[in-house]
Amino acid sequence: MAIRALVWNENEHEKTNALVQKLYPKGIHHAVAAAFAGASDITVETATLDQPEHGLSEERLRKTDVLLWWGHKAHGKVDDAIVERVQRRVWEGMGLIVLHSGHFSKIFKRLMGTPCALKWREAGEVERVWVINRNHPIAAGLPEYIEIEHEEMYGEPFTIPEPLETVLISWFEGGEVFRSGVTYQRGAGRIFYFRPGHEAYPTYHNPLVLKVILNATRWAFNPAPAWTAVDDAPNVPHDKAPVPLDVKGPRLHEAGETGFR
Amino acid sequence: MAIRALVWNENEHEKTNALVQKLYPKGIHHAVAAAFAGASDITVETATLDQPEHGLSEERLRKTDVLLWWGHKAHGKVDDAIVERVQRRVWEGMGLIVLHSGHFSKIFKRLMGTPCALKWREAGEVERVWVINRNHPIAAGLPEYIEIEHEEMYGEPFTIPEPLETVLISWFEGGEVFRSGVTYQRGAGRIFYFRPGHEAYPTYHNPLVLKVILNATRWAFNPAPAWTAVDDAPNVPHDKAPVPLDVKGPRLHEAGETGFR
Amino acid sequence: MAIRALVWNENEHEKTNALVQKLYPKGIHHAVAAAFAGASDITVETATLDQPEHGLSEERLRKTDVLLWWGHKAHGKVDDAIVERVQRRVWEGMGLIVLHSGHFSKIFKRLMGTPCALKWREAGEVERVWVINRNHPIAAGLPEYIEIEHEEMYGEPFTIPEPLETVLISWFEGGEVFRSGVTYQRGAGRIFYFRPGHEAYPTYHNPLVLKVILNATRWAFNPAPAWTAVDDAPNVPHDKAPVPLDVKGPRLHEAGETGFR
Amino acid sequence: MAIRALVWNENEHEKTNALVQKLYPKGIHHAVAAAFAGASDITVETATLDQPEHGLSEERLRKTDVLLWWGHKAHGKVDDAIVERVQRRVWEGMGLIVLHSGHFSKIFKRLMGTPCALKWREAGEVERVWVINRNHPIAAGLPEYIEIEHEEMYGEPFTIPEPLETVLISWFEGGEVFRSGVTYQRGAGRIFYFRPGHEAYPTYHNPLVLKVILNATRWAFNPAPAWTAVDDAPNVPHDKAPVPLDVKGPRLHEAGETGFR
Repeated sequence: MAIRALVWNENEHEKTNALVQKLYPKGIHHAVAAAFAGASDITVETATLDQPEHGLSEERLRKTDVLLWWGHKAHGKVDDAIVERVQRRVWEGMGLIVLHSGHFSKIFKRLMGTPCALKWREAGEVERVWVINRNHPIAAGLPEYIEIEHEEMYGEPFTIPEPLETVLISWFEGGEVFRSGVTYQRGAGRIFYFRPGHEAYPTYHNPLVLKVILNATRWAFNPAPAWTAVDDAPNVPHDKAPVPLDVKGPRLHEAGETGFR
Repeated sequence: MAIRALVWNENEHEKTNALVQKLYPKGIHHAVAAAFAGASDITVETATLDQPEHGLSEERLRKTDVLLWWGHKAHGKVDDAIVERVQRRVWEGMGLIVLHSGHFSKIFKRLMGTPCALKWREAGEVERVWVINRNHPIAAGLPEYIEIEHEEMYGEPFTIPEPLETVLISWFEGGEVFRSGVTYQRGAGRIFYFRPGHEAYPTYHNPLVLKVILNATRWAFNPAPAWTAVDDAPNVPHDKAPVPLDVKGPRLHEAGETGFR
Repeated sequence: MAIRALVWNENEHEKTNALVQKLYPKGIHHAVAAAFAGASDITVETATLDQPEHGLSEERLRKTDVLLWWGHKAHGKVDDAIVERVQRRVWEGMGLIVLHSGHFSKIFKRLMGTPCALKWREAGEVERVWVINRNHPIAAGLPEYIEIEHEEMYGEPFTIPEPLETVLISWFEGGEVFRSGVTYQRGAGRIFYFRPGHEAYPTYHNPLVLKVILNATRWAFNPAPAWTAVDDAPNVPHDKAPVPLDVKGPRLHEAGETGFR
Repeated sequence: MAIRALVWNENEHEKTNALVQKLYPKGIHHAVAAAFAGASDITVETATLDQPEHGLSEERLRKTDVLLWWGHKAHGKVDDAIVERVQRRVWEGMGLIVLHSGHFSKIFKRLMGTPCALKWREAGEVERVWVINRNHPIAAGLPEYIEIEHEEMYGEPFTIPEPLETVLISWFEGGEVFRSGVTYQRGAGRIFYFRPGHEAYPTYHNPLVLKVILNATRWAFNPAPAWTAVDDAPNVPHDKAPVPLDVKGPRLHEAGETGFR
């Protein structure tokens, strides 16, 4: 059974900016989706902000194993209810790959609980993405580093939680460093943030960048059934405890009552 | 200069439930604040839900080094704008100690990015809180374990992110286990979740429970000036880079423009 | 290409103790190897202390993807040179599953850098192994907990480094808790410690215990080529740097010299 | 009561190399010890390889709260028995700051369980040490980065375990990056590795480098009494269990017997 990837893109710059149109005539989502060309274990679809429910209906998310997210100027246009829906699916086990300026997306900030802020500079400088955790599946088949001729700089401090694993760290020509590939888990869902991908450069045509995206998608895939009860707070009655008990002392809750939340 | 602690309590059960009134006649907040009696390095105040701005005005939070949070039945009554204000102060460096049923508070869920759900049972059973990270400052001066005669059970899976450090794990008479003391960092703020403290039992009169609260408050204190720029995304112009650069290639942003968010 | 598992057992109690002989007539290694029965993606062999080089020759280790380790009374008989050989293979990418009393094995202590000590009691009490990280591949297909009728108790504090992930926590009838399933990475190798398995009880005939062992073996498998250069400290000459440099200032080392170690 | 710091240096280059002699006429240990000048909460002594027991007798280590370690060409001359002694003191709670080429010291490799290898180049290039965890006590009072005009390059992959916290990351003029400040805990002892400090450059005369060393020493200090039982494996008899038990089923060990190790 194939991994069902869904590439989401706000798809705004592509409509208004000649430079971005030229680099990504079909939209960044299609360039990212090309990462899965030839991968027989993955099927891919795309979704964009302007579709009904941003292309992220309950049913579609239920059929998505790994969601990839690109956004930049339109973070504020993403509906809060849909952000909550995506978050819930991550908790249930859907993988999430957040790309580049997606660091400021509502969904990433909500899953991290931090500002996710950073320094930046758009000067077309060299970025060198170093592999520091060679064993990680996301680094499979990569060379020592990926050199990208022109990229936007993102610099530390990147206000994210301490990652579960730091896989990639970037060097920039202008003198900064950045944790460019970091992993997290939230509920049953795995999350990977991957830095490169400014819309003014052809980064998503770089085969090594696409290889990271392919690897990350395989890594983020959770084959287990959706953990739909992830947010439940079940009461375990005293007589159904692993070691059945008599109730001792006073009680605040009535028997069978649902807990407060 | 003393650590300025602020104990926040929804203070609802205390008004309506005779049992809780008897156990905590001045409110749980005052019982928790008693943890600092005799600690010359800490000053303590209290705040409750029913005060203007829930007792958590901008000014008061600015003068708070460590906030302790107890809530249960009134999580939904806490104003979202005030939750955001508290979150921002945590990012700036304010410590946060989340107590017991506070696992489902808006502020804790927002900082964790997960459901923070768990199993529960109110049967007055024995809880034994084991110290598993003896070196941690939060465990200073504790015995091998704290035995609490009557407590509510909280059972795994507790849907939190993998902690930075697991300090305490509880054993329950009815057969469950629970990560009872876990640490996190969000921005410049340190967070500690501490499990015991059901309002139907005299847990906050237990000297060892209060010792954990005292230790945790000292640990969570960040003496650095508030990191008020924690959410900024400053542009570093090409000619102000650590290694000054010429701009290469195209640009999306105008010089001096603020980035999208 | 199948995962090549190798189950190592000191195989001493089996020769001298009638109880262990009866429970594990072919040795604990064969009971553990039964975890892979029916797993078409895994081939399994066994090795024991009394074989030449403890059954762990250079060649055999080179052909091993995941090593499982059971030892107890004969830790001291394991040759230091072979321990170093195993450690090196872990660094190169071989997975390692350390079972039960293997917490005190030379190889585990060497990879952890800590005492790996714990409390213990042999009273045939109930152990309940709770799954706390449901999403982890090692927990695939497990129920909420594994209940083992008779087991030796291991109690905290377990002096290991803070784990990468805590997957399982045990509850014991006598009142203790223990981190029963924890993960680490050392070099390119993944390590899983799994607590149950005292030789006086039929634990390795429990299908759920064997399922954890099967899952852990799949998880620990690193499909990448062996990282044989993992311990190299290569010099990168100034003119071969990613950004070629002129040498500035004085030098301690001659050009082309090997670094100190 | 003051923190008792002890700066250990192999002190070999200083005897044979004119360049190092000129930079550090009293030895690198005295330059490092100068970090504590004016710190009324810290007393400092030094020790060197050529002293009896390398200056690290049982008694002296017992009176040391934080040990700082500089070694390079003489790692192999350090006696294994003394390495074990130091390791044990770390487990008991002594802090350890490992400096620069100490990454290949016996004590660091033993505590990490990994090769601790890296790339290197001696070209006098610029190193820029970025603070990425601003809240960490080790970063107290630092600017955004420390710029060092001439340093040896250390490059990733640095084969260490995933750190507890990554505090500092370095950028090098020649194009590499390196995790320059990382924390660990082993037993009750805190460990900090700090990269800069090649003996051919005046790095230990840089006030910001000394500030990191001062901060790290305060952070690594554990005020708790030494955990001398850290390596014990105590038996908890069935009738002394937190929940006293009857023995069920067979036993391998005699009552009162010491466990195997």
